[in-house]
Amino acid sequence: MIKAGIIGATGYAGAEIAKILYSHPEVAIVSYGSKSYEGEDFSEIYGQFRNLINENCSPDDLDALVNKADVIFTATPQGYLAGKLTKELLSKCKFIDLSADYRLTDVDIYEKWYKIKHQSPDLIKEAVYGLCEINREQIKHTRLLANPGCFTTCSILTAYPLVKEGLIDPSTLIIDALSGVTGAGRGAKTANLYCEVNESAKPYGVAVHRHTPEIEEQLSKACGKNFNLNFTPHLVPMNRGILATEYASLVNVNGRLPSEKTIRAAYEKYYKDEYFIRLLPDGKYPETKFVEHTNFVDIGFKVDPRTNRIIMMGAIDNLVKGAAGQAVQNMNIMFGLPENTGLKFSV
Amino acid sequence: MIKAGIIGATGYAGAEIAKILYSHPEVAIVSYGSKSYEGEDFSEIYGQFRNLINENCSPDDLDALVNKADVIFTATPQGYLAGKLTKELLSKCKFIDLSADYRLTDVDIYEKWYKIKHQSPDLIKEAVYGLCEINREQIKHTRLLANPGCFTTCSILTAYPLVKEGLIDPSTLIIDALSGVTGAGRGAKTANLYCEVNESAKPYGVAVHRHTPEIEEQLSKACGKNFNLNFTPHLVPMNRGILATEYASLVNVNGRLPSEKTIRAAYEKYYKDEYFIRLLPDGKYPETKFVEHTNFVDIGFKVDPRTNRIIMMGAIDNLVKGAAGQAVQNMNIMFGLPENTGLKFSV
Amino acid sequence: MIKAGIIGATGYAGAEIAKILYSHPEVAIVSYGSKSYEGEDFSEIYGQFRNLINENCSPDDLDALVNKADVIFTATPQGYLAGKLTKELLSKCKFIDLSADYRLTDVDIYEKWYKIKHQSPDLIKEAVYGLCEINREQIKHTRLLANPGCFTTCSILTAYPLVKEGLIDPSTLIIDALSGVTGAGRGAKTANLYCEVNESAKPYGVAVHRHTPEIEEQLSKACGKNFNLNFTPHLVPMNRGILATEYASLVNVNGRLPSEKTIRAAYEKYYKDEYFIRLLPDGKYPETKFVEHTNFVDIGFKVDPRTNRIIMMGAIDNLVKGAAGQAVQNMNIMFGLPENTGLKFSV
Amino acid sequence: MIKAGIIGATGYAGAEIAKILYSHPEVAIVSYGSKSYEGEDFSEIYGQFRNLINENCSPDDLDALVNKADVIFTATPQGYLAGKLTKELLSKCKFIDLSADYRLTDVDIYEKWYKIKHQSPDLIKEAVYGLCEINREQIKHTRLLANPGCFTTCSILTAYPLVKEGLIDPSTLIIDALSGVTGAGRGAKTANLYCEVNESAKPYGVAVHRHTPEIEEQLSKACGKNFNLNFTPHLVPMNRGILATEYASLVNVNGRLPSEKTIRAAYEKYYKDEYFIRLLPDGKYPETKFVEHTNFVDIGFKVDPRTNRIIMMGAIDNLVKGAAGQAVQNMNIMFGLPENTGLKFSV
Repeated sequence: MIKAGIIGATGYAGAEIAKILYSHPEVAIVSYGSKSYEGEDFSEIYGQFRNLINENCSPDDLDALVNKADVIFTATPQGYLAGKLTKELLSKCKFIDLSADYRLTDVDIYEKWYKIKHQSPDLIKEAVYGLCEINREQIKHTRLLANPGCFTTCSILTAYPLVKEGLIDPSTLIIDALSGVTGAGRGAKTANLYCEVNESAKPYGVAVHRHTPEIEEQLSKACGKNFNLNFTPHLVPMNRGILATEYASLVNVNGRLPSEKTIRAAYEKYYKDEYFIRLLPDGKYPETKFVEHTNFVDIGFKVDPRTNRIIMMGAIDNLVKGAAGQAVQNMNIMFGLPENTGLKFSV
Repeated sequence: MIKAGIIGATGYAGAEIAKILYSHPEVAIVSYGSKSYEGEDFSEIYGQFRNLINENCSPDDLDALVNKADVIFTATPQGYLAGKLTKELLSKCKFIDLSADYRLTDVDIYEKWYKIKHQSPDLIKEAVYGLCEINREQIKHTRLLANPGCFTTCSILTAYPLVKEGLIDPSTLIIDALSGVTGAGRGAKTANLYCEVNESAKPYGVAVHRHTPEIEEQLSKACGKNFNLNFTPHLVPMNRGILATEYASLVNVNGRLPSEKTIRAAYEKYYKDEYFIRLLPDGKYPETKFVEHTNFVDIGFKVDPRTNRIIMMGAIDNLVKGAAGQAVQNMNIMFGLPENTGLKFSV
Repeated sequence: MIKAGIIGATGYAGAEIAKILYSHPEVAIVSYGSKSYEGEDFSEIYGQFRNLINENCSPDDLDALVNKADVIFTATPQGYLAGKLTKELLSKCKFIDLSADYRLTDVDIYEKWYKIKHQSPDLIKEAVYGLCEINREQIKHTRLLANPGCFTTCSILTAYPLVKEGLIDPSTLIIDALSGVTGAGRGAKTANLYCEVNESAKPYGVAVHRHTPEIEEQLSKACGKNFNLNFTPHLVPMNRGILATEYASLVNVNGRLPSEKTIRAAYEKYYKDEYFIRLLPDGKYPETKFVEHTNFVDIGFKVDPRTNRIIMMGAIDNLVKGAAGQAVQNMNIMFGLPENTGLKFSV
Repeated sequence: MIKAGIIGATGYAGAEIAKILYSHPEVAIVSYGSKSYEGEDFSEIYGQFRNLINENCSPDDLDALVNKADVIFTATPQGYLAGKLTKELLSKCKFIDLSADYRLTDVDIYEKWYKIKHQSPDLIKEAVYGLCEINREQIKHTRLLANPGCFTTCSILTAYPLVKEGLIDPSTLIIDALSGVTGAGRGAKTANLYCEVNESAKPYGVAVHRHTPEIEEQLSKACGKNFNLNFTPHLVPMNRGILATEYASLVNVNGRLPSEKTIRAAYEKYYKDEYFIRLLPDGKYPETKFVEHTNFVDIGFKVDPRTNRIIMMGAIDNLVKGAAGQAVQNMNIMFGLPENTGLKFSV
């Protein structure tokens, strides 16, 4: 059994990790860390676990936890792990960090977008960016896993094969995304009250959302050149789900625009054996309800011959493939388990 | 492996049976029957099953199905199974019926409340009322299982120990219940359109809802005398969940009203070893979100010394414990499996 | 023009007063008081008023405000007005208080249920309970108006004629009510976050909700004897609306139970000329969406001959007839205006 | 008093016309036409009108209606009015058509996108496209008003000044839009059931939505050259509201990209005196809740210096400014009334 500790277990992502690991056949949870609810019964906060998890929330004590856990999931605010992590801690335990602390290779970009001084920049190069379907080989061997952001996971996977194969012009890429409200976290903010969010849709973080450089870094790596893109998230009234609708101009290949068949072939080249990626047939587009509570990414596309653009659409559950599910998928890879262990579709 | 057929697989309850059985370790689904979608790919209708279930919906052919299935789940309109079932069919296969056809022992009451002529009244006495926690022993030996209604499951289990122990006066029992909209089914009716239901709450079936005689029959059996009660369901804007708030006058025992301790002891007498019933501690009341997508029943209560009444509250997921989950729990009992097989909490 | 000041203008009820008064032909708002947003532009908080209301929120300065306002609406926490109000202030300006400070005539009951020491108990006898349809005459002459609670308004009006006429036994009265989430206020509490409330229903304040003694006092007055009742509110996922479902045993009149015709006659006796009360025809029951954004109360009922009980159902918009709308209706009465001025149905 | 008839009064847009006209000081509604509910009491279908509108729905009899109405609103399916309208009918009465029948000047484009044969193409040139803020002068004199689509109203007004002034390159324009579910109409379709729409977001009509050519025609007219654009609508779980997020590359003016100040000046040039258009300050973006139940258009923008693109965002209520409100605004203009009569913000 893998012994897993969770830091930040009472946030939405942390509790989702607990939920997945509770049913995982190869994992025992050894700690439910929570600063806000230290000493309280975890199942009083998340009543769905009543009679199932009988544990009190523990303080955030990384030094103690590395000695009893094989892997620690940190579902914590930006800056938390960067401020605590050391080579010594890393030598004792594997880390899967759900914050952005080790996602960006360029510390200046991190500090500029997050407006925080990075406390352990030397450890960034240790980290592997945990987009499982892309970086599987490196993930196997890392002890510091930077779990991707929710919007980034969806945005990158939806466009990756076409960027990689040069079928679209990355400099024309525009990503317009919708998010359920769990994406805003469980902090007590007026803006996230039921009556503020319900019956309304709004954009936020326009041109400044922090997932932008993360998407840019990964897709720039895919196409071999740096570029900037537009990313606009919107908050819509539902608990879970991310839908990314992405636009890009198609690129001539051998003097002509790629056909839908060529595009489908590119997607299949990268994804046809991926358990968690479902390429939809022609004329079908993703709906967030079909991936809710699953680790799947549903991807569809449509070429518009009137504008020579392609519209790519992807959907995930922001708390599963966009956070806790992918974190567990990464853990499975890091510990040599079948990748979908504990992540199959179920009740 | 138990071979299971589903008739009515594309309704909400039928699809939930498919979902649960898909992950059930001891079951293989042999037929997805659907009159409305015959010949269509099941996963085109319920996109969450894409790549997982690759089967077309089959016609409703009971005669053929009894030869290839060990158990048939009928998630069909009232009257369907009563119009088809025969002793011969029953001799070949077990039936778990999610309609009301075999729930009421008195055919006159059925015909009066449902306004349908019962086509096989002689088979009613074969049927066992599948409220697992109450009728477990009989369920083990039946081949015709009448799966309880959603409101009834929640309403009965919430009051049962107190009625059975004589701690409340059944003639004072009033049940006020809330239901999510999946309870209204998947038929294309204007009244169930998103914009008709959203941002509104309404009572329906006031004093005439068909689950009333079902609750009355079971609770009358518990206390050994016939009585009538009031039951008022309300539709509230959420997908899933039933919350029943029940009121009754407490009965003097040895010259005094029962204390909260006595009441708790009565609940524990019946439920303390039940996996799927969670009795909440003092001051905690059920919330439907904590039982969503689970087969649990959460029950809480409060004595009001000002009125000498007790307020009992229960919550279930109407599609799980209120339909498909309980059906599978019944199947587990009928086939000698551990009762929570395939029904444990998971992703 | 009536000069109106609002204290607590940035809460949901306060903002609804602003919204109604903005269109009221006989009122000018002279102050938008808000402790939390002092100095901020009111329309930055409630963006619907952009370009319409160009005023900054002012500090809560009652002493100054009484000199420039003809009427002050206090949409403030319990205890606020009781701690500030004096005979001198009352001599300068009329007050319409949306808190519970002056609703209960017995200060002990107030202090017991609200767990606050009342700071101006001598002023309670000045106050008139502003249930317009019942206390219209007294409202005309008061300078201190206690605006009823949201649940109370709906609960009382739904049962009043039958209690008053002795057609139901008040000691059997049980009120089960649903509320939209604006009823929980605009404070930043985790429990009221979108994802905590959405897709769930729950009871709260079971047997201890503060609106209970308020309902009891008014209905006891109606029938001329004191009695206790059960009142259970539930939170359901919608912004606005209260639905009260009320149960009571019918009382023999001249040796027989009252017919539906007798009951309808009782309702009509009290309500047939009331603009804001709509008695629904037989077989029709209230839905909150039909009163949303209006000052109407919709009332329906059903006699259950099986139990000799009546089920009475009422619906209001908690922020309009349950708070701001009724406050303005009271203001209209207090200032001699037609009662529905500024409260008619519109865009 | 203007006598107004409504054809299609029981759809969502038709009922919203009834709602607005009910409170309009200069209008009397003479007919509530409804094919589906002919002979039924209008207020039984829309219960909010109980006691207010006491009229039965009438059959769709245009020939009779032109003799008693001064203006007829047709909130009918595509093809209805085109199949009925004649010069003779037009000579007797003004028409405001909420369908697409007379919105596109090129009948071939209409027939291609709507897949219907146009039955009265000769009348198209009579029609004025009723985008009030743009075509006010022509609207004054027309007797056949083509009321714009919901997405089009929002999409065009959000981009119009920048397209007109040449500040953005129209060929780069991408419009990503969200719509509440009233936009899908009141027909009884499974896809629009509460449980199908709730807790999900999905794109639809990708690259083929019929509002595309309407947006293209109007914006092409603005910039003086034809171009194609991408428009992708999404359905999100809320009753009302459209949010359009639009992307375009900025165009060099005098050798440099336009500043935010230049862009704001362009918006103000066209909109600063428009009652119904609210240009938001820097850093503020539209939210649909702030325009709900109003005829306002809220517009915000952000220049992204990293990509030299502008993100323009607009929000409307799809049933008000996107349908019924704009229709009444058009009526006001056509009949010489102040443009916001009956459309001011109110309870």
